[in-house]
Amino acid sequence: MAPSVPSVPPGFRALTEATGFAESNGPWFEKIDGPRVIRGFRPGPQHANGLGIVHGGMLAAFLDAAMGTAVWHTLGRRAVTVRLTLDYLAPGRLGDWLQAEGEVIGHDEQVAQIRGRLYGPRHEVLGGLGVFALLARQRVIESRS
Amino acid sequence: MAPSVPSVPPGFRALTEATGFAESNGPWFEKIDGPRVIRGFRPGPQHANGLGIVHGGMLAAFLDAAMGTAVWHTLGRRAVTVRLTLDYLAPGRLGDWLQAEGEVIGHDEQVAQIRGRLYGPRHEVLGGLGVFALLARQRVIESRS
Repeated sequence: MAPSVPSVPPGFRALTEATGFAESNGPWFEKIDGPRVIRGFRPGPQHANGLGIVHGGMLAAFLDAAMGTAVWHTLGRRAVTVRLTLDYLAPGRLGDWLQAEGEVIGHDEQVAQIRGRLYGPRHEVLGGLGVFALLARQRVIESRS
Repeated sequence: MAPSVPSVPPGFRALTEATGFAESNGPWFEKIDGPRVIRGFRPGPQHANGLGIVHGGMLAAFLDAAMGTAVWHTLGRRAVTVRLTLDYLAPGRLGDWLQAEGEVIGHDEQVAQIRGRLYGPRHEVLGGLGVFALLARQRVIESRS
């Protein structure tokens, strides 16, 4: 069901710099579209739950990472999740190309509020609302995916 | 940092029946303690984010699964997550033994409310509050991890 090299829409690059969780649950892809960063992946059997759909936790992880990336792209700050509310709207299907993105809807020097969405070719899959703590500017981190 | 066979506290069995996401992010462990089901795992580099701590999405996935298991153990019903609110309280450290469990705090025939917690040897790591939709009783599913 999941080819080892998934087919990928135009404009997305593989996050080959991914490590740890992002690497072992990848490949993940990213497209920069002006102010937006769109993450994408094509779930396979390794992302499934016992119902044969994408594991809700995998969806949560992917959206959380996309929301953190939106903070970095918009504010130039690394961030960690403090609070995240997730609404599961529809199942994520294996083999579909799923995308996720975040939007900074407010921030101060310490904290940012992010709206996130994860969606497939036919429907919204997961909605998120998150509070992220902004790390000190001098902290240099190779990647936070 | 993470041995291939992690050291496991007494009473936990490996979820060898795990498939998909749970298998590829395992090994995960479980202990039944009367009315409680306690899940455990020892995170390694494959569970990390770019900061060198456990990926928040991995923590979310593990807690979500533990909460779903609590529904099954308490009500005898399979369930899918509808809404999940997560509070990140402290980092999850690689190499620590982390546990997660859920408690059914209310339910009717269709829906259950679950409180969840994920904690390490020193502190609470992640708190959760979830709404789960209960699947029809006749649906037989091999495992939902």
